[in-house]
Amino acid sequence: MVRPKQFNNEKALNEAMQMFWTKGYDGTSLPDLLQCMNVSRSSLYNSYQDKQTLFHQTLTYYQQTIGASKREALTGAHSAKDGIRQYFYRLIKIALSEELPGGCFFTNVATSLETADENTRQRVYESLKSLEELFYNVLLRGLQMGEIDPNKDIRKKASLLLGLSQGINVLSRVYKEKELFENMINTALEEI
Amino acid sequence: MVRPKQFNNEKALNEAMQMFWTKGYDGTSLPDLLQCMNVSRSSLYNSYQDKQTLFHQTLTYYQQTIGASKREALTGAHSAKDGIRQYFYRLIKIALSEELPGGCFFTNVATSLETADENTRQRVYESLKSLEELFYNVLLRGLQMGEIDPNKDIRKKASLLLGLSQGINVLSRVYKEKELFENMINTALEEI
Repeated sequence: MVRPKQFNNEKALNEAMQMFWTKGYDGTSLPDLLQCMNVSRSSLYNSYQDKQTLFHQTLTYYQQTIGASKREALTGAHSAKDGIRQYFYRLIKIALSEELPGGCFFTNVATSLETADENTRQRVYESLKSLEELFYNVLLRGLQMGEIDPNKDIRKKASLLLGLSQGINVLSRVYKEKELFENMINTALEEI
Repeated sequence: MVRPKQFNNEKALNEAMQMFWTKGYDGTSLPDLLQCMNVSRSSLYNSYQDKQTLFHQTLTYYQQTIGASKREALTGAHSAKDGIRQYFYRLIKIALSEELPGGCFFTNVATSLETADENTRQRVYESLKSLEELFYNVLLRGLQMGEIDPNKDIRKKASLLLGLSQGINVLSRVYKEKELFENMINTALEEI
């Protein structure tokens, strides 16, 4: 990977991520990127090759920062249900944050995969698949610890939670009601 | 409303809807529209004023066709649970259809509201709100008919179903597995 030399890599990447998150890959123009990253055209091409490579790096940046912070909440709790609750509470907080574009970068990218490149499609697929596995593993641990009813099909519960996570990411673009989403996850947890 | 005179209104609207659905409002260019609608620039402006007005008309077109067909499945069934199942089965079929861009036009628009005009924001909000009310009313009827456990909080169940509908619309862009989604809704229905 060519390392950016002429500007603050992380700040510029963060700005580019927020631009793609807000306007989508197709809707983001080169002038949009140059302006928000505060770089020259040659500097951008020297550092990131092209728009698509930069986009892939913003996906990685999201996963290593915001994405990671959500998943840590899921795996770092003492009980399965508490981990799931903490994950969703953090997701809701991020989705409604006024410091960020709203919702989730990956969810937005998922809804525009029709025009995306194969690498992006694969990245989104793997991200969703690994989140589903994470839910499953947390539920499995809860089942082994006697917290989860052994009659529940935890494979199906894991995909239901995955569906709910994506649903909240969409709805948060329209409804700005934290309690509504917290109620949603607590209602879902009552049945797990 | 200015009526289109120089070309087949419905066919052209349908093409424009699929273009916006695929590439998003920001990602759709005027040449994209002219090509898919097979019209001249002057014809498009005569008939639809501008890109934004055309976009609003495609939202209406979606609601009156695909959106209406989903909601009819919900309200046309004999029981509440069957109506909900039929709604989701139709949603899944449409979301995975190879004849359409995939997922749901309104869900995609919801994820790009950051850059949308006020009319579009309002339309998406009202569409989601009315779907939630529809779920609530179907559940209420089920409760009155003795089908739904009176201890269940049907207001919360309605918003959970709304969340799930949006989640499936997102996931269907990545997972092409009908059974996975049908299992999701049947798992959710077990708890209603």
